[in-house]
Order: sequence, then C-alpha cells, then structure tokens
Amino acid sequence: MSETNRQILLASRPSGWPEPANFRLVEAPLPALGDDQLLVRNHWLSLDPYMRGRMNDAQSYAAPQKLGEVMIGGTAGEVVASKNPKFAVGDKVVGMLGWQLYGVSDGSMLMKVDDRHIPLSAYLGTVGMPGVTAWYGLMDICQPKAGETVVVTAASGAVGSVVGQLAKMKGCRAVGIAGGAEKCRYVIDELGFDACVDYKAGNLWKDIKAATPDGIDCLFENVGGEIFDTLLGRMNAFSRIALCGLIAQYNSEPYPMKNIGSVLINRIRMQGFIVSEHMERWPTALADLGQGVASGKIKYRETVAQGLENAPQAFIGLLKGANLGKQLVKLI
Amino acid sequence: MSETNRQILLASRPSGWPEPANFRLVEAPLPALGDDQLLVRNHWLSLDPYMRGRMNDAQSYAAPQKLGEVMIGGTAGEVVASKNPKFAVGDKVVGMLGWQLYGVSDGSMLMKVDDRHIPLSAYLGTVGMPGVTAWYGLMDICQPKAGETVVVTAASGAVGSVVGQLAKMKGCRAVGIAGGAEKCRYVIDELGFDACVDYKAGNLWKDIKAATPDGIDCLFENVGGEIFDTLLGRMNAFSRIALCGLIAQYNSEPYPMKNIGSVLINRIRMQGFIVSEHMERWPTALADLGQGVASGKIKYRETVAQGLENAPQAFIGLLKGANLGKQLVKLI
Repeated sequence: MSETNRQILLASRPSGWPEPANFRLVEAPLPALGDDQLLVRNHWLSLDPYMRGRMNDAQSYAAPQKLGEVMIGGTAGEVVASKNPKFAVGDKVVGMLGWQLYGVSDGSMLMKVDDRHIPLSAYLGTVGMPGVTAWYGLMDICQPKAGETVVVTAASGAVGSVVGQLAKMKGCRAVGIAGGAEKCRYVIDELGFDACVDYKAGNLWKDIKAATPDGIDCLFENVGGEIFDTLLGRMNAFSRIALCGLIAQYNSEPYPMKNIGSVLINRIRMQGFIVSEHMERWPTALADLGQGVASGKIKYRETVAQGLENAPQAFIGLLKGANLGKQLVKLI
Repeated sequence: MSETNRQILLASRPSGWPEPANFRLVEAPLPALGDDQLLVRNHWLSLDPYMRGRMNDAQSYAAPQKLGEVMIGGTAGEVVASKNPKFAVGDKVVGMLGWQLYGVSDGSMLMKVDDRHIPLSAYLGTVGMPGVTAWYGLMDICQPKAGETVVVTAASGAVGSVVGQLAKMKGCRAVGIAGGAEKCRYVIDELGFDACVDYKAGNLWKDIKAATPDGIDCLFENVGGEIFDTLLGRMNAFSRIALCGLIAQYNSEPYPMKNIGSVLINRIRMQGFIVSEHMERWPTALADLGQGVASGKIKYRETVAQGLENAPQAFIGLLKGANLGKQLVKLI
C-alpha cells in the first residue's frame, strides 16, 4: 500500500451554479487502521443531485458539508485491508466514503454486496439509493393502481428511469418528461415508457396534454419549476404527488408557482420525502430491484466519468442534465 | 300561504370580484307540492367562500352554478307544508335550498335538527358544514399531537375559529392569522387562541416567527397567496398542511408561490380536501361540535345581514373579510 490517497474537498460554497473552483483535489497519506477499522479502495463514486444542497450553508434536512473536508458521496469498492472481523480483504462493499480513492470505515455504515449477478456500480444506482428512492416514492407515496397514469420528471435519470419501469410493472401508463429527443427515445425505446415529453421542444402544455389523455393520477416530481407547475394543471381528482427533488431550482431562485390551487381543486395529496428516513423499507425495495436487474426486467444506463479529477465537471453536468441514466465516476 | 317566494339568481358570471349586478332578485309563485314533497320557509341563509368558485364557468370539483337559476347555498328553516310522512309542519330543518325565502324538497337532502339547546343558525356554522370542515381538516388530515403548534388562517371566520378551539382542546398551541386588530383580539380574548398575527400590520414574517417560537407542525390553510407562502417558510420537519381554501386568489390571478421547496425540505404532507366527500365522518364530528356548542366550550360569533336583498353585498363583504365569525343572512 505505497499509494497515497487522493481526495476532493469542498473548497468554497457556490452561489448559483457550482464551479470547478468550488472543489479542491488534494493528496493525503493512507491512514493507519485502528481496531475494527478497514480500508476500502473505491471503484465507483456516485454523483447525485442532493449533493448540491449539502454545498450550501443554509439549514436543510441534513447538516451542510463542511468546508475543507472530503465531499460526501456514495461509493462502491473493495476491502484492501481489514482489522474488522466482519470484513475480509476482497469483499465488495457499498457505503458513503466520499469523493476519494480510499476510505476508512469501522464497518458500521458499510454494506457487503454480491457482484456476481449484479454489477458493482448498480448498487449505486438502480439497486441502491436512487432505485429505492424511486421504489419508495412510487409504491408507498403514490400507490398507483393498474390503469392509472404515472408521470415522472427527469425520466431518463437514475431515479426517473426506475419509476417508469416499476409503474409499467404495476400495469400503469408511464409517461416521462425529459430534456431532448435522445433522452426521450431512450425512455420509450429502451425503458418501455408509453410516452415521453421533451420539455425542450417548446410545447410543454400541449405535449403533456397529448401524452396524458386521461390526466395524471401519480406524479413523481424530481425537477420542480415550470415543468412541475405545468403538470399541476393536469392532475386528476384524488391524485398523488411524491415530491422527491426540485433540481430546477437548486442553483437559482425558486420558480413562482401559479398552480398550487390544483392541490385544493383536485384534492391532491402531496408528500415530500427523503428515502434515508425510511430504512425499514429498504430490504423489500432492494429485493425487488435486485431481482429486476438480475433478471434483466429493469434496465438502466450509466454515464461514466473517468478519474476522480473529473468528478467536479461531471457533477456540474449532472445538475445541467448532461447525463443519461446514472452519473458515476470510475476511480480505478 | 298567500306569500310569494323571493329568490336571488345568478345573472352573470363575475370576472374578478363579484358585483351586485351579477345577482338578480326575482319573485316567483310558491309551487304546488307533489307526492312526498315539503315546503320549507328558510330562516337563515349561509354565505360561504366556496360559492365564489361555483360562480365561474371553469371546471372545478363541482359543476358550475347555472346562469338564471337560484344561487346555491345552505339554509336553515321550518317546514310549513308537507306531503312527506317523515316531516311535519313545524320541524326545523337544515339543507341546501339556496338563496330564497322558500324551498321545496323531497326530504332526501334535508336534516331535521333540534334547536332547543343549539340555536338554529349554528347548524349553518359551528355545528354544520364549516364546523365539520374544521374538524375533519384538523383531526383527520393534520392529526395534531399535544404540544404541537397549529396555525390557522382566516382564524376569526366560521371555519378558522373552530380549528383553533379544537386545537386547544387537543393540548396544542393555537395560532391564528387574521386581518386587523379587532379580529385578532376576538381570536385571543374570546376564542382562547395563544396568539394571533394581524396580516395587515405589515410585519408578516417577523410576526409569524414571534407567534410560533417552535415552528409550525400543522397548518390549516384557508387563504393562500402571500400568507400561505410565508407560512410555508416556517413549517417544521414532518409537518402537515390541510389545504381547505385559497380565498385570496378566488377573485384574482394566483399569487406566485416561492416556498414550495419547503414541502420537500421539511417532508411535508399536504392534502387538499372537500368536506362533503367525507360524509362518513360527519356524525362523529357533529356530535363533538354539538356537545361543544351546547356546553359553551366552543364559542362562535355571527355576522348577520338582514333580508334576502342584502345577501349579495354581504357575500362580497365575506370575500373581502368584512365579517367576523359566520356570515349569515336572516330571511325572516
């Protein structure tokens, strides 16, 4: 283990869009392991929209990321040294070891995974936090019934792609909203959605109306802003909204919403949620999702940036919708 | 029965605020009763914000009020003729007989009430639809726990006044939002709320903050607009919003809401509702409310307009907040 660690720290807090200068790449010696500790060589780093919120100093549901510390983030890798009896060298593990090549853990927040039938990277996507987010928001909050129309925004992303496929399995009409013709083709042709609206095409209301002839019963909302406001005008009576993300306003002033009246008129139930607060549902969700991926019934794509040094640019791209499917950084 | 009926019809649909010209007062002969029909002399007409929505031609949860027909509305009165074996002359009844002195019913939507311990007019307010609205939105949607903070807008109105008093009975901190110092004094001194914010005083955010030192756990929202948007910024994690009305925008363009992000950040559950869709809860609610009023534990006030011809002006006043407590029209 002569290699040194490489880490990306939060150097400064962005105002508006993050910039490469908000991050700093540093080298650090590999720490000596204490009792019960183990060392993981990260193979994959997950990039997720929630990280943008942690870069702020503002009060939110989670404490802000501290300046000068390693950026938080989900990782998948391999145990390379262990003083913990529960982990052996060679074990594949998923955890929150951050934007760095090596991470030390006491094993408490680390999950051993089996990568024989499911690729290691999928544990950061469809069979990980984004997949469970999709599963929980759809199954437990939206509770769709066969024949209903489910709409999901950011449909080609790590969460949205799973929402639509699960909705199809439940016998629903699945409609995606995505940015650009290529993403929409992917959503329909590869993921099997019934329809997809390209919000960049300039006919948002007309296209949403055409894609949802029977209105919307369940909305899985990742984006917010004008798209969300427009979708509110298409909701059915007694419809449900799982409010999962508002990526459109993470880097700018909130969009002024005009259609909140629809919540009253249509007796909508809207629920904001964070999947990490529902750990009791993870085993059921992961079993479903793992089976779906292993059997090929749930499809996914990944956008992979190569090398830790490219993580900041890939993260900024994710916030701008440059990725298709799960955004990862390959660290090895 | 030599008297003729007097009725107020919807003459034209308002754009923006209703005007007296949107209504027309007419005389009509009293109809002959068919089999099982009965004639009611209305003593009280209830005026309620929902009526404004019915005056539009737009799609909403209820069919629009038809032009040239008697305005819909809740009424309390006395049976003066009956060919229905279930109703006798002299029975006191509550129903939806509209803006008129006399109404004919087949008895199917009419409820006999006992006015010995509860005044007849109260069946249009605290022991009627507004009271059950308060009860259902608070108990079933907000589900407050002792020690939590409950905020209600339009706190001195027919619904809001009951919300706050029920919240106090549940051991909560009850905070009202109302327009003007007189209404706020009434809310605190007579209704027993812990605090009241006068939204006309010009310090909305500062005053809301001071009145809710521990944030807001339950919001019973009747008003919408800037007040609702401001309250969203004060909601606690896992808080609940019963969305009952948006009177601030019934006569104007919707206010551009900026704080919907709070629903996500605070994992809020927001539910729009209409009390008439939850008839299964009315008996329990009415028993609670009737007991509260009969025992004097639930207090209320009424603003009474005298005579059917004054109903339009009283209704416009209600929409502008001129009333204190339940707005009624005395028809006898």
